[in-house]
Amino acid sequence: MRNIRLIIAYDGSSFFGFQIQPNARTIQGELEMALSKITKEDIEVVGSGRTDAGVHAINQVVNFKTNSRIPVDKITIALNSLLPDSIVAKDAREVPLDFHSRFSAKSRSYIYLLYTSSYPSPFLRSYAWYLEEKPDMERMLDILDIFKGQKDFTSFSRSNGEGTVREVYDISLINRDPFIIFYIKANGFLRGMVRLIVRIIVDAGYGITGREEIISILEAKRRGLIKGTAPPGGLYLYNIEY
Amino acid sequence: MRNIRLIIAYDGSSFFGFQIQPNARTIQGELEMALSKITKEDIEVVGSGRTDAGVHAINQVVNFKTNSRIPVDKITIALNSLLPDSIVAKDAREVPLDFHSRFSAKSRSYIYLLYTSSYPSPFLRSYAWYLEEKPDMERMLDILDIFKGQKDFTSFSRSNGEGTVREVYDISLINRDPFIIFYIKANGFLRGMVRLIVRIIVDAGYGITGREEIISILEAKRRGLIKGTAPPGGLYLYNIEY
Repeated sequence: MRNIRLIIAYDGSSFFGFQIQPNARTIQGELEMALSKITKEDIEVVGSGRTDAGVHAINQVVNFKTNSRIPVDKITIALNSLLPDSIVAKDAREVPLDFHSRFSAKSRSYIYLLYTSSYPSPFLRSYAWYLEEKPDMERMLDILDIFKGQKDFTSFSRSNGEGTVREVYDISLINRDPFIIFYIKANGFLRGMVRLIVRIIVDAGYGITGREEIISILEAKRRGLIKGTAPPGGLYLYNIEY
Repeated sequence: MRNIRLIIAYDGSSFFGFQIQPNARTIQGELEMALSKITKEDIEVVGSGRTDAGVHAINQVVNFKTNSRIPVDKITIALNSLLPDSIVAKDAREVPLDFHSRFSAKSRSYIYLLYTSSYPSPFLRSYAWYLEEKPDMERMLDILDIFKGQKDFTSFSRSNGEGTVREVYDISLINRDPFIIFYIKANGFLRGMVRLIVRIIVDAGYGITGREEIISILEAKRRGLIKGTAPPGGLYLYNIEY
């Protein structure tokens, strides 16, 4: 038995998210189908985390166990010939049997792309959040520290679950006209967390939500306080560290 | 009667090209449908030129005649609310009645995007030509002059038509790792011309086709001498000058 770790990139716009579902095209579903063909086994894939429908990945990490003898350096070629063009296997290597894409992860990072222009781009409609008016950079940079460190992020989650405390290691915002690039790194994320944080940061940039209000939303530890969220197309799972 | 000129951008990957066709989604079809709704007239749109299925446009120019009294500065807003997200109206203005998007054009320019990386990008599959091995820049730059000036481009066309002489004003290639950006400007282009030129330039970059051979292909004035073509997704209609 071998444990194989893959690094994959995908365009989430044509999928119903990462996690396998009956009657829906998912990343996990496509990966398991292709890997089962390659290995002639029933392969189950473990992802570092789920991504929602429309969310992309640049370096998603998955692992699977197999008795197949396929050389590890042939796996990406075989996979890429079977997978749809919207999923690309970038790397495959053998890892210790106890490696688990999700449980072994020490940190995860995401990127979120904002696009500002006087008209939307037909090319970016599934890849960035289009904002006609540019939110104020200073106002946005001013509140990033609120999210840094170990916090209970219940107010920034979309579903119930055990454990709502996460530690944000790094959070930043860079202006690269016509884009604003948001980056966040944490030991883990609650469902919907990144997009809710991006939403409140943009609201802050427009002067809709102030620093004190954001702090009180966070401290309320209650879901549903934030109106709306950032659209999925701007979000990219960037890196997983082990 | 007014003559309105529009500048539009579109993601060609979801359309069967510019030109209207029965039972197929086309740019012209979508534009005419939306403009007919806005003006409550039967609008016919004239494009600066056709683009093939999968080819994009950054600044395509079209014009149409109307008796509608809609203020010209309301047209893009009305259009963008009716058009699919993959077509964006960027500008509308009234022009003299004798302005004709195609016949009045003095020059046209295209951009072609090459993408080189050890694996394809799931995000660029419809937006650039993926080349696993990078073609040699020097070799490609060396042959660009062959296409410059007034020439008979029959060998670089895909269909019969009257008039096969075109004047190429400008042709260039810039290296912006991991992209190579090709630019060409001419008084006009034959069908398939840009993609066939890009194809032969890439072949030259790989050392498959040499300078003398390319000159003799051009001088043969005969279609079908070039094997294959560059895929449509890398091609962008960039600008039309009047």
